[in-house]
Amino acid sequence: MLKKLIKTAKGEVKADLVLKNATYVDVFSGKIAKGDIAICGEKIAGVGEYDGLEEIDCKNLTVLPGYIDGHVHIESSQLSPEGFASLIVPRGTTAIIADPHEITNVCGMAGCEYILKASKSVPLDVMLNLPSCVPATPFETSGAHIDGNETARQIKKDYIFGLGEFMNYPGVLNCDKDVIKKLEAAHAEGKIIDGHAPAVYGKELNAYLCGGIKTDHECVTKAEVEEKISKGMYVHIRHGSSTQNLGNAKYINDKNSRRFILCTDDRHAADLKEKGHIDDALRRLVKDGLDPVTAVTCATLNCAECYNLKWRGGIAPFWLADLVIVDDLKNFNAKYVIKSGKLVAKDGEALFDASKRYLPKSVLNTVNLKELKADDFKISVKGNKVKAMTIEPGGVVTGCEIAEVKNENGDIDVKGTDLLKLAVVERHKMTGNIGKAVFKGYGLKGGAMGITIAHDSHNVILLGDDNEAMAKAANKLKEIGGGMVLVETDGETHYLTLDIAGLMSSCDAEHLQSYSRAIIEEAHGMGVKREYEAFMSLAFLSLAVIPKLKILDTGLFDVEKFSFTPLEAE
Amino acid sequence: MLKKLIKTAKGEVKADLVLKNATYVDVFSGKIAKGDIAICGEKIAGVGEYDGLEEIDCKNLTVLPGYIDGHVHIESSQLSPEGFASLIVPRGTTAIIADPHEITNVCGMAGCEYILKASKSVPLDVMLNLPSCVPATPFETSGAHIDGNETARQIKKDYIFGLGEFMNYPGVLNCDKDVIKKLEAAHAEGKIIDGHAPAVYGKELNAYLCGGIKTDHECVTKAEVEEKISKGMYVHIRHGSSTQNLGNAKYINDKNSRRFILCTDDRHAADLKEKGHIDDALRRLVKDGLDPVTAVTCATLNCAECYNLKWRGGIAPFWLADLVIVDDLKNFNAKYVIKSGKLVAKDGEALFDASKRYLPKSVLNTVNLKELKADDFKISVKGNKVKAMTIEPGGVVTGCEIAEVKNENGDIDVKGTDLLKLAVVERHKMTGNIGKAVFKGYGLKGGAMGITIAHDSHNVILLGDDNEAMAKAANKLKEIGGGMVLVETDGETHYLTLDIAGLMSSCDAEHLQSYSRAIIEEAHGMGVKREYEAFMSLAFLSLAVIPKLKILDTGLFDVEKFSFTPLEAE
Repeated sequence: MLKKLIKTAKGEVKADLVLKNATYVDVFSGKIAKGDIAICGEKIAGVGEYDGLEEIDCKNLTVLPGYIDGHVHIESSQLSPEGFASLIVPRGTTAIIADPHEITNVCGMAGCEYILKASKSVPLDVMLNLPSCVPATPFETSGAHIDGNETARQIKKDYIFGLGEFMNYPGVLNCDKDVIKKLEAAHAEGKIIDGHAPAVYGKELNAYLCGGIKTDHECVTKAEVEEKISKGMYVHIRHGSSTQNLGNAKYINDKNSRRFILCTDDRHAADLKEKGHIDDALRRLVKDGLDPVTAVTCATLNCAECYNLKWRGGIAPFWLADLVIVDDLKNFNAKYVIKSGKLVAKDGEALFDASKRYLPKSVLNTVNLKELKADDFKISVKGNKVKAMTIEPGGVVTGCEIAEVKNENGDIDVKGTDLLKLAVVERHKMTGNIGKAVFKGYGLKGGAMGITIAHDSHNVILLGDDNEAMAKAANKLKEIGGGMVLVETDGETHYLTLDIAGLMSSCDAEHLQSYSRAIIEEAHGMGVKREYEAFMSLAFLSLAVIPKLKILDTGLFDVEKFSFTPLEAE
Repeated sequence: MLKKLIKTAKGEVKADLVLKNATYVDVFSGKIAKGDIAICGEKIAGVGEYDGLEEIDCKNLTVLPGYIDGHVHIESSQLSPEGFASLIVPRGTTAIIADPHEITNVCGMAGCEYILKASKSVPLDVMLNLPSCVPATPFETSGAHIDGNETARQIKKDYIFGLGEFMNYPGVLNCDKDVIKKLEAAHAEGKIIDGHAPAVYGKELNAYLCGGIKTDHECVTKAEVEEKISKGMYVHIRHGSSTQNLGNAKYINDKNSRRFILCTDDRHAADLKEKGHIDDALRRLVKDGLDPVTAVTCATLNCAECYNLKWRGGIAPFWLADLVIVDDLKNFNAKYVIKSGKLVAKDGEALFDASKRYLPKSVLNTVNLKELKADDFKISVKGNKVKAMTIEPGGVVTGCEIAEVKNENGDIDVKGTDLLKLAVVERHKMTGNIGKAVFKGYGLKGGAMGITIAHDSHNVILLGDDNEAMAKAANKLKEIGGGMVLVETDGETHYLTLDIAGLMSSCDAEHLQSYSRAIIEEAHGMGVKREYEAFMSLAFLSLAVIPKLKILDTGLFDVEKFSFTPLEAE
């Protein structure tokens, strides 16, 4: 292999593929350069004047190293890894650092393994981090529990790249025993630990970093970016669907630029399909004034250096031939994508077969419920004042309002009011747990809706004004193995199947989008206000690490007090 | 451990050591910053406001990460690793990438092991590369032979950091089978391969790099630096005693600076003692106009990144507390040096005990000769014209002149001429090989001189006008176990012992220098012209990879023709 590569470099044998007359980004010198790029097998053999068995004329095009997404939860696309790759590879992304936090909270290590194995059939390198927060909090019922000891066992495995974003920063600061075990286990194996430390500064940041944590994707202010960079962190510039901090690029300068990388974190299929992936981040960053070569370097070499991905992220002899050929450094439209030396996408279309699905039993039929009945959704309270949850459109922080309810026959009746019943039904261990609450101002009328994406334990979350419809919705979700459901009282039931762990669909991006649009439209038809994301806004009502009031399968939770709270208002 | 570190970072417990009121170089942001630097155990816990069990007031001083020498042959100092450390650690160097090429050519793997074990008693991290060229050429007799198979066995060992400078670039270009084996073995273990490719450009450079070679310290022109950087190499800026390329720093700019690192390669004890080590390179670079923060970053973070030395080369929480506290960023005078959190040097003086010597038998008594007699140095030629070697003062490239000799009784007589007899006596395998040649213009009269440093196989190299004295010199070198010797015909014998492999002295730097000065003075007293380095100029007359004419134990070698050549001129 080395021999053929060397001979190709010397020009003694024809290259397998030559990108003729290329203009390319030299990330090492921070320059635009020119030459034929010769590829042999999966590597670049050289840049200069070369002839190839195959050639692509790159006149008027620019060749870049393939993009690396520094931190992404594939699950947020609601697509299988194969479906996800079919969208991002044609955009120029050839490697990702994946944190399968969601599916692992449902399926445990089987979730990790699934992501990895499913990715094998597509031309995308997936570096798989072991999620560090399974479950995310000790207060709820998740599908798995990966404690310090289990982390120590799993992190040893070759296929585990590192330890996923360490969200439990209070645990680090408090030297929580299990947390320390996880951190030390990762260090013992020399594996990277990704960070997540929003608005942590000063000595607290020092303490967090003393866990040996290397990255952060949560910065929102100049002071935060600068402090984290100066303390040795790599800072991700994030281009998610809901959460973005592309503005942090303003703080990049020639002296610190090597410490910035790009990521998407959570990005929906629709955004991936319509706007793009890292390519879209580049487009936006350059439009906002970032030097294009710097932007490309953040998305390639910097990320490779941060994650110690050798011979990746640059265009040079012996480096991996992961390349994207774009129209220009303004639009970043990918004309061709080359993964490990092979042409895998052209004009935005995948040339690989992304229709196959690896679907092991371990990630299917994960909605473990006993048959639910209308009475299961009765809410019995003392008095008629309750704490009603509210949510700002587009946000994930919830509020709390005191509301009056009709309290009759051991149940509250919300019909005809702006209140709805909210329930989280445990779906992993068949505990029968149902956490119940009251939600205000969503707009739904005459039925129920439900979804099996409910961060971070992904129990079933239901909203409705009708106990019968809520039970029906839950039972439907069990029947289809997870997804989204809408039940009209005395009417139709609509659903979208997320058969993989109740989080992702095994169908292709196009169909998922069309089903998704349809059911969202039905939800709005049933009154859900258009300022909400219909189903996805519900998915954060159970995320007990974000204020203020949240609902878990175990009950109503006051995040600020970090304890359960009664539904009754005092 | 992690727990104590985190608590220290939070300020809950006192740090072991605090560098109070520090101004420090933030290599991540490329800035000067301020704060107390708290150290716990071997790591930095944080920067901010801290109290320590011990404190060093750093007001008016500047704290830098400890320097890393990216490529050095300790042997060139002629000091043991302990003696070497006693000079460079007080200068601020806390880690080196060592290539024990010389001692391994004499002692084989025992040489590597010796360097590593001897370094254990001193506060200097030695990353040990396995020399890639043992022997340097197939034409001579060396003390060891590390072929591809042996490389594959050795490179697996944990204590072997990488593969040392791959000087055999023709071997890479020609896909020499054994060369390919060595390269592939290093890649299989994920270990770095250092490069050495003077004036290799274009497709040849591409081919060389396709060996997976990462660094180069031989650049001399702007074009060479720029091409090597653009092809993904790290370029060492070298501050050796004889070979320097500090001028390459002119080609550093904000876009490419991350790819430059510093090294010394070969640096004599005298230079280390009188001028310094990496500190001297920094002083010179800054004097020549390089931004001091950039210079420091080259000597620290860049080198750590190149060699994948984790948590090293920067001042940040969780990073190794290898620090040097200097007076300013102009003079770089090291006031304090901290290695792994411990104060190890103050005001240029080592605070550690560098007097111990690890001296295994395997590196002692390495001059294996049978007793030599005057007749062994007879040179029998046909006719009276010979090819005489010449050398430019200060250089290592030799020339060839046709000289007339008195040819009598089966020997040539050089007495009273400007010619000298030159001989390389094999000293490893007791083959009895003696290569003989004629050398012109060195100045020595009335005796002989010899040295056991003779690149790269380090046989005994002798120069003289008297067969008897030459034999006596060789026998003396055997007796003392290697070193330098000077024999006056009918007079005294002077010598300096290099007991470790005939390359390095077990005595301390001060004594070595004084002995060295004395014997060099004696040599000049015997006529050796002052423009030559007396003994060390001889050491390169056997280096058969540098033009033009060289002498090996196996005979006279024409480097340009890459074959042996008769002494007789045609």
